[in-house]
Amino acid sequence: MTHFEITATDGAARAGVLRTAHGDVPTPAFMPVGTKATVKGLHPDRLRAMGASIVLGNTYHLFFRPGVDVIEELGGLHRFMGWDGPILTDSGGFQVFSLRHTLDVDDDGVTFRSVYDGDPARFTPELAADVQRRLGSDVAMCLDLCPPAGAPRADVGLAVERTAAWARRQLAAPRAEGQLVFGIAQGGIDPELRRRSIGEIASLGFDGHALGGLSVGEDRDAMLDTVAWAAPLLPAERPRYFMGIGDPLGILDVVERGIDIFDCVLPTRLGRTATALTWEGRLNLKNARFRRDARPLDEECGCLACDRFSRAYLRHLVTQQELLGLILLSEHNVRFLLDLTAGARSAIERGEFGRYRSGVLERLGAEAAAGQEVT
Amino acid sequence: MTHFEITATDGAARAGVLRTAHGDVPTPAFMPVGTKATVKGLHPDRLRAMGASIVLGNTYHLFFRPGVDVIEELGGLHRFMGWDGPILTDSGGFQVFSLRHTLDVDDDGVTFRSVYDGDPARFTPELAADVQRRLGSDVAMCLDLCPPAGAPRADVGLAVERTAAWARRQLAAPRAEGQLVFGIAQGGIDPELRRRSIGEIASLGFDGHALGGLSVGEDRDAMLDTVAWAAPLLPAERPRYFMGIGDPLGILDVVERGIDIFDCVLPTRLGRTATALTWEGRLNLKNARFRRDARPLDEECGCLACDRFSRAYLRHLVTQQELLGLILLSEHNVRFLLDLTAGARSAIERGEFGRYRSGVLERLGAEAAAGQEVT
Repeated sequence: MTHFEITATDGAARAGVLRTAHGDVPTPAFMPVGTKATVKGLHPDRLRAMGASIVLGNTYHLFFRPGVDVIEELGGLHRFMGWDGPILTDSGGFQVFSLRHTLDVDDDGVTFRSVYDGDPARFTPELAADVQRRLGSDVAMCLDLCPPAGAPRADVGLAVERTAAWARRQLAAPRAEGQLVFGIAQGGIDPELRRRSIGEIASLGFDGHALGGLSVGEDRDAMLDTVAWAAPLLPAERPRYFMGIGDPLGILDVVERGIDIFDCVLPTRLGRTATALTWEGRLNLKNARFRRDARPLDEECGCLACDRFSRAYLRHLVTQQELLGLILLSEHNVRFLLDLTAGARSAIERGEFGRYRSGVLERLGAEAAAGQEVT
Repeated sequence: MTHFEITATDGAARAGVLRTAHGDVPTPAFMPVGTKATVKGLHPDRLRAMGASIVLGNTYHLFFRPGVDVIEELGGLHRFMGWDGPILTDSGGFQVFSLRHTLDVDDDGVTFRSVYDGDPARFTPELAADVQRRLGSDVAMCLDLCPPAGAPRADVGLAVERTAAWARRQLAAPRAEGQLVFGIAQGGIDPELRRRSIGEIASLGFDGHALGGLSVGEDRDAMLDTVAWAAPLLPAERPRYFMGIGDPLGILDVVERGIDIFDCVLPTRLGRTATALTWEGRLNLKNARFRRDARPLDEECGCLACDRFSRAYLRHLVTQQELLGLILLSEHNVRFLLDLTAGARSAIERGEFGRYRSGVLERLGAEAAAGQEVT
């Protein structure tokens, strides 16, 4: 039995199931981000109750705190964080480059300063494989080189080259039992480089493939155009992962273009800044207009926030910086994206994804769909 | 049927049931403190699941934020905060005096600066009654005058006098349907003043009585001596409330002396500062010795923290300032005190309170019992 099965398609959009050592992941799947072995503010049982089927853990952060030796000794990442469902771990590559403490990149690996204590550290493909093996994640990601948007073409080209060489090395390294390994294609929005990277990575036989180096600051239309032609170049019979998208419209945009899995810190980050994702668009709960608003955030939502509490109460909590406000808004936002994604999956199965997407856009309104705050 | 029934006694210690408009409260009862209409970090369903039967709300804070008009319009405090069990509201007196922005006290009431915006505000017994009526709490407390420990005897005497006059006025004011009203005796640790205050307050026919003005900085032995002789002077057929005690030994000390209800912010405050109450004493989870500790906080505890997570994971969360760490430690600490209190109740019913108390002291060790951190 293959680890990935497509159960329905609708245009380029796909519905399927990713089978992992810790359970099945219905796709399209939104992965809540548990950077430091916790999805901020949410107990694992809440994630499960809300319908999350997989969470993301962060190799970079866990490597430094608490240290992979600690997690390994305590029985692996699942046991450590109390989540027995599937976990995907990123490789740390994105943090190494985005945290901007890179000291040196060479053919062998990358040297950088830890964001925790400033000490020099070094990541190689072999280390990325070994750390993720010891964490015991269900899906390990390759260490890639991720240049920022607007990087010189020569830099992007070198990143493509090294990413492929590193992918070969990581694929040859030992993995945890049952662990899947995904390759990552780079190349920014440069058609030739992106195409070359996909060709190289796709030829190596990974269990799945990611489009990396997008959603890193480039023009959105250019990004979506790239996804539109690049995603179909990734092997159709393997899952496709778009790294780092979490606004409602963006999720539908990449699903429409053939992406199966995606992740983003957006819902919990918005939750911690008093903002709720709703069918009316984003609501800033600090706004005085909610002071006496007896309605839930969203009439149709069944999350712990909407189930019982008024906007007025949530506003009170966030203006008073009460922990429960952050918890409830984080829960609501994660649930909103999980529900949105489940709706997309169901629409694909019915062959009505286009109608679903239009309906969402109409409900959200153009401004809200583009991620604008409506209050 | 009376609202308070004593079901067992053991020495001066009592087990009973306080009946309120929103349900029964088995006593002795520890009340988690929901200052601003939320027990910090804990969803009401968690409080219920942990065995909390009553929570405390804070008139002072709710009066200013979000305002009693908002809470009233949204259906009262129970509905506002999503807790359908009993709620006791303090009168705001303690905050008016302890927040130290008092401008003037006269026979009619107290003028002070709001801690929120510095604007002058005024509380009177009639206002305290009216606010608590509109909040719709199950138990309303009288506005009292609470001098700090070490206040001149003349000040304590005047506080006793005004507290009695205010109690008469508040008792005459309208209350919410089914609302119980408790009087508060002042007098510090001065035998004559305390005795006089108890005599005056107890003569007025309140539904319950509190010892206020203790645990405000005075010597602990003097405080306990006062409780020992003062509690029995409060009407035996009415519940007795000790305001502001929450360390394990302190709880057992006041229960032993005939107190039925008590409250404290300690468990959630400790939780937010990475400290756990356990049968080994207080554990500071930031301590490096927990880095690889696979044990739960407490082997016998069934809370969400102990159910699944290791001390090593909790240490990781608190050192990384993760929300989930604060939530789990707050839950554990509240549960610890609820369990301790439930154990005391059960021991009183068996006539074994003395043995229970000794057992707790022995397990906790003298240092731990006295509230010292053991790590």
